[in-house]
Amino acid sequence: MEQRVLEALIHAVGGDASRVSTGDSERDLHSRDLSAHEPRLPDVVVYPTSTVEVSRVLALAHEHHVAVTPFGAGSSLEGNALPVHGGISLDLTRMAKIKRIGADDLVAIVEPGVTRSGLSAAVGTHGLWFPVDPGADATLGGMAATNAAGTTTVRYGKMRNQVLALEAVLAGGRVIRTGTAAAKTSAGYDLTALLVGSEGTLAVITELTLRLQGIPEHTVAARMSFPELEAACTVAATAVAAGASVQRLELLDAATVAIVNAYQGTTYPETPCLFVETAGNRAAAIEDLDVVVSFGRELGATGVVIEDDPDARALLWKARHSVAYATTAASPGRRHRTTDTAVPVSELAAHAAYARDLLERTRLKGGIIGHAGDGNLHVDLMFDPACEQELAAIDEIVVLLVGDALARGGTVTGEHGVGLGKRAALAREHGDLVELYTGIKQLFDPRGIMNPGKVIP
Amino acid sequence: MEQRVLEALIHAVGGDASRVSTGDSERDLHSRDLSAHEPRLPDVVVYPTSTVEVSRVLALAHEHHVAVTPFGAGSSLEGNALPVHGGISLDLTRMAKIKRIGADDLVAIVEPGVTRSGLSAAVGTHGLWFPVDPGADATLGGMAATNAAGTTTVRYGKMRNQVLALEAVLAGGRVIRTGTAAAKTSAGYDLTALLVGSEGTLAVITELTLRLQGIPEHTVAARMSFPELEAACTVAATAVAAGASVQRLELLDAATVAIVNAYQGTTYPETPCLFVETAGNRAAAIEDLDVVVSFGRELGATGVVIEDDPDARALLWKARHSVAYATTAASPGRRHRTTDTAVPVSELAAHAAYARDLLERTRLKGGIIGHAGDGNLHVDLMFDPACEQELAAIDEIVVLLVGDALARGGTVTGEHGVGLGKRAALAREHGDLVELYTGIKQLFDPRGIMNPGKVIP
Repeated sequence: MEQRVLEALIHAVGGDASRVSTGDSERDLHSRDLSAHEPRLPDVVVYPTSTVEVSRVLALAHEHHVAVTPFGAGSSLEGNALPVHGGISLDLTRMAKIKRIGADDLVAIVEPGVTRSGLSAAVGTHGLWFPVDPGADATLGGMAATNAAGTTTVRYGKMRNQVLALEAVLAGGRVIRTGTAAAKTSAGYDLTALLVGSEGTLAVITELTLRLQGIPEHTVAARMSFPELEAACTVAATAVAAGASVQRLELLDAATVAIVNAYQGTTYPETPCLFVETAGNRAAAIEDLDVVVSFGRELGATGVVIEDDPDARALLWKARHSVAYATTAASPGRRHRTTDTAVPVSELAAHAAYARDLLERTRLKGGIIGHAGDGNLHVDLMFDPACEQELAAIDEIVVLLVGDALARGGTVTGEHGVGLGKRAALAREHGDLVELYTGIKQLFDPRGIMNPGKVIP
Repeated sequence: MEQRVLEALIHAVGGDASRVSTGDSERDLHSRDLSAHEPRLPDVVVYPTSTVEVSRVLALAHEHHVAVTPFGAGSSLEGNALPVHGGISLDLTRMAKIKRIGADDLVAIVEPGVTRSGLSAAVGTHGLWFPVDPGADATLGGMAATNAAGTTTVRYGKMRNQVLALEAVLAGGRVIRTGTAAAKTSAGYDLTALLVGSEGTLAVITELTLRLQGIPEHTVAARMSFPELEAACTVAATAVAAGASVQRLELLDAATVAIVNAYQGTTYPETPCLFVETAGNRAAAIEDLDVVVSFGRELGATGVVIEDDPDARALLWKARHSVAYATTAASPGRRHRTTDTAVPVSELAAHAAYARDLLERTRLKGGIIGHAGDGNLHVDLMFDPACEQELAAIDEIVVLLVGDALARGGTVTGEHGVGLGKRAALAREHGDLVELYTGIKQLFDPRGIMNPGKVIP
């Protein structure tokens, strides 16, 4: 990068040279995410602390045709935050103020670098919580950019359902505001929903107005063991079809339970299982759980354990959330790649069986987990990055799973986004929309500087 | 319209001349909606019966630069369906097939002319319902086009939350498919959310994949009377802030209750009141209602009546839904206009007081109702269309209410959409976005034939 651009960037962040870094270690930290995609160094890492600074950086980048890739916690799983065209890695973690907690309206206004856990801690004292929980302690800006989801999506929906309004900066530096703090609006094209999930390719999010939820009065959980993966999926699908009110409904295969047991010292039966949680007032939570457990018993559960002790319940969800770390720990020297397909929930059992057969046939190390209530499946694969054969086998698994999901009326990404890894898959799902995607990209970012190389096939 | 275009339109609908009408009465029926906007005759009304026919009509319209305005039940409230540039009124009510009810996945696939009540009847036999209820028996295509909402939005959200996937036809005739039948996706820019609420200005919706809900096991309702409008609003806001789980939470002022009593022979106390409904399993519904009623008693309710008899409950919601008809019946010879602003719920009491003061000052006949749980307020005004002074007073009320809503962090339309009537207001709310709206419109509809004169300020 030219020296005069670097100097202009320092000027853009108020002359603070410490926030414009070309040092190797900082560039290296911003060259990778949690995915298996090849790292790529940015030319420079810039740490803005305000919308004005973001605006100045994007004006400069636009002027000089320099790529800008927003970066939060680096927890993305499809290479979404990798600066594949070099240029600027725009690290937003120093914009981490919670600007307002509107407990009366169940909203919070935050900067993009606020983490999920940071927001939860701040609003918890008001008896509130922010329900979207992708597992990783991601930033809320990053979660909005990929339209993240997680274990509670079956009840509360994804990020797009939680974002009421955004402030964002366009290429060239213009600041826009979308949406409203009111609970509903029909005012104009929904640019909030368009920016959520656009992965930094249209604008940089600098402020989010988010919906909060009241912490339920009572929460209960259960785990159910099954002889086969399909039986667990069928119970989940039956519960959803019956309109059972669940807060979490998670699938783990036997391999994953074994890995989790080894990682955290639990002794859960090493069979396919469902972790279920319901919440509400006390009577409702208990009755709702009972409905799901009844389906489990009817449809072949070999064991049901109600986790009514808060510590046991916390351990259950810690187990679920630690799957990625436990999987990595179980295979030292190997790298981790996770798939991400979603199907109508009635197709989940068949899609899961297809995934299991693929795993068995390729003899790759891996486990299957799923946000079963949403029909969203992940295959966690561990591979030797030096082994061409394993790399090829994993690429093939992804392609086959994507094909199977599409054949069942599903989608090529349930929650991880398109990033680098799903561009070809996106063309398979929405080939007829690529022209419109490209037109929208061109409208927002005529010079193609905003996270180039992502999303658009 | 040129004869050769009319002949080509007949050809486009398979040579069936009865579905291409230039007759006065059919054009007249398609010249107006339920709003007070001036009627405008289309040149021709076309009734397609398939996506292929819609595609052919849009190809022709594009070729000949003829305006196309989609038309459903004609129940829009901001002139959304008026063919202000003449041309074709595209009546979609003959595309009214329910293509699939996926009870296992809680989805239905419908053509755009299916009405809300038609879908409810069809899915009810499966123990399911479609919750968005704007009062009028609108078509689902029209409801999606305006991002409609209604009494249950406080619990289930608006149309945008219910539409999983769309088939739509672009100007020029190209058919696209957005979204997926899976419960969640992060695949590409969310064109489903962009088309929902675009009011036919970007594409014509020809198929919708909609989320369904299980019919709750138990539903209970109550009505509460208050000495002042503000007290009723405060109770609603307090219930929302406390995270109370309500299914409906509706505000009616004293004038509206009086009109409803006269219309349907009820004897509800003619004071400001809240109608509340909760639903779930039996214990949950009762406890949730009790929470809201407790707030009511603490905060000044002068009377609370639990409507636990199903007939009484049905009458309660019939009363609420009949407000527009009751208001019209109460003022023979006058016309009806309704405002539609939404504010953060903590601002509802102040916004409602502002509306009441305006009504008192202008001495117009009207009542105030609100989807109180969403902070969404309507002032139902009856006016003499021959009286310039009343027309001017109503225009002024709309402008003032819009200004007050914006000053409180709200929006210029909660659910009726922009249509004709809110274009200037949209510019007040989102002036910084007009350039992007225009660019998106240009991308989808380069010749400006799709419902021209609407939405874009």
